[in-house]
Amino acid sequence: MNKMIKKEKSKRPIILITNDDGIMAPGIKHLIKLMRTIGDVVVVAPDKPQSAMGHAITIAMPLRLDHIVAEENYKEYSCSGTPVDCVKLAVNNILHGKPDLLVSGINHGSNASINVIYSGTMSAAVEGAIENIPSIGFSILDFSFDIDLAPADKYILSVARKVLKNGLPLNTCLNVNIPVTKKIKGLKVCRQSLGYWADEYFERKDPHHKNYYWLTGKFINEDKGKDTDEWALKNGYISAVPTQFDFTAHHALSQIKHLEE
Amino acid sequence: MNKMIKKEKSKRPIILITNDDGIMAPGIKHLIKLMRTIGDVVVVAPDKPQSAMGHAITIAMPLRLDHIVAEENYKEYSCSGTPVDCVKLAVNNILHGKPDLLVSGINHGSNASINVIYSGTMSAAVEGAIENIPSIGFSILDFSFDIDLAPADKYILSVARKVLKNGLPLNTCLNVNIPVTKKIKGLKVCRQSLGYWADEYFERKDPHHKNYYWLTGKFINEDKGKDTDEWALKNGYISAVPTQFDFTAHHALSQIKHLEE
Repeated sequence: MNKMIKKEKSKRPIILITNDDGIMAPGIKHLIKLMRTIGDVVVVAPDKPQSAMGHAITIAMPLRLDHIVAEENYKEYSCSGTPVDCVKLAVNNILHGKPDLLVSGINHGSNASINVIYSGTMSAAVEGAIENIPSIGFSILDFSFDIDLAPADKYILSVARKVLKNGLPLNTCLNVNIPVTKKIKGLKVCRQSLGYWADEYFERKDPHHKNYYWLTGKFINEDKGKDTDEWALKNGYISAVPTQFDFTAHHALSQIKHLEE
Repeated sequence: MNKMIKKEKSKRPIILITNDDGIMAPGIKHLIKLMRTIGDVVVVAPDKPQSAMGHAITIAMPLRLDHIVAEENYKEYSCSGTPVDCVKLAVNNILHGKPDLLVSGINHGSNASINVIYSGTMSAAVEGAIENIPSIGFSILDFSFDIDLAPADKYILSVARKVLKNGLPLNTCLNVNIPVTKKIKGLKVCRQSLGYWADEYFERKDPHHKNYYWLTGKFINEDKGKDTDEWALKNGYISAVPTQFDFTAHHALSQIKHLEE
């Protein structure tokens, strides 16, 4: 793979874009359009939908990379792997270094609250944070590919510009969720609401009389804190949660000392 | 699906077992053997290896479940999905309720430090914690299926018994890693070491002259804290990290207030 964009060649920031809905999704097309107004863009995104992949990586199979667009300030690759694979491959074999900013999305569907843990979009942003790249995941609270993404444009551009300028705290990326409304009230920095999914499976028989199961469920949020992402979104604000990858329950360390032997 | 094991029928605890190496791996066979000495066991594990799946769930495809063993105090199912799918399906469609304990593993390979984020084994335990089930992920620091798992037996049984008796702090599961040694010194409660992977890809050409990429890399740990899992493991101890799913970087909330609009 050639070095496609060298930092020395351009004073514009290099922005790496990925997602989990796949390279053809309207959300990533919209994000590309916005980011091209502020930087040189390299897209490395899954060649098919990879929703709910969590922080999956591909280790038991080789990955494929197809170079689709090769313009001066805009490159596009599709990748056979997960969103995390896309980030790793982009940094190691396409950019040969770190971009100035990584943005993931715009995801079609919420990644607020507990959804962050299942989210391929956010796993790409978290992988960016692990690799010390200022990283933001964007999601809108609607699965429809027809949704009007424009009302959030000024906020997406503003937060991207600020993060480009100031960076983010160490080991932290941003989980940005966008409510569906024509009149967004603003952007609030929040904590992750402690909601969860009450799962249910459709149980059906296939034409060969064998059972199959299809996941469905209902999101439950009993965490009514006004400092949460769910509160912000319900009240017409974009939510921005600083998101990290130290999973230690530090507050619980002393509570489980009795397990030591 | 019938209610396979009803709590009323048995005073022994019901222990749900899963993993990410697949139902045929020696690690899960060993864990089953141990857990059957302290409870009635239901195994719901992937029908194929699902390593590095992170917290992936299957939503775009139906799931299959095969009932393999149906003894009085021991049931075994293989599932076409990820470790998280196994937990969700077990709770919803097999147990029709929560088990008294969920154990995942024994994983062949470390899930200490940053590995927790990529781990299917730990994602099953985290899913357990989300569903308020006392949950433990076990891993041994060797990929070989021939490794002697017996030196850790007494610690695995002891921690499982203690968690059955006392539970775990709210929204917390345990990430237990086992060093490869005949003489384990003990079990230490630790925090997750802030290591990372320096990735590299093998880049090769297939027989049709197309490139493919295969992930490899080197684990780097600059976090030398004696309170970390990596320190414990290097010094002959089993590590137990209380692990949670609030990804908010609480310490960073005030640092990024300037992003608000």
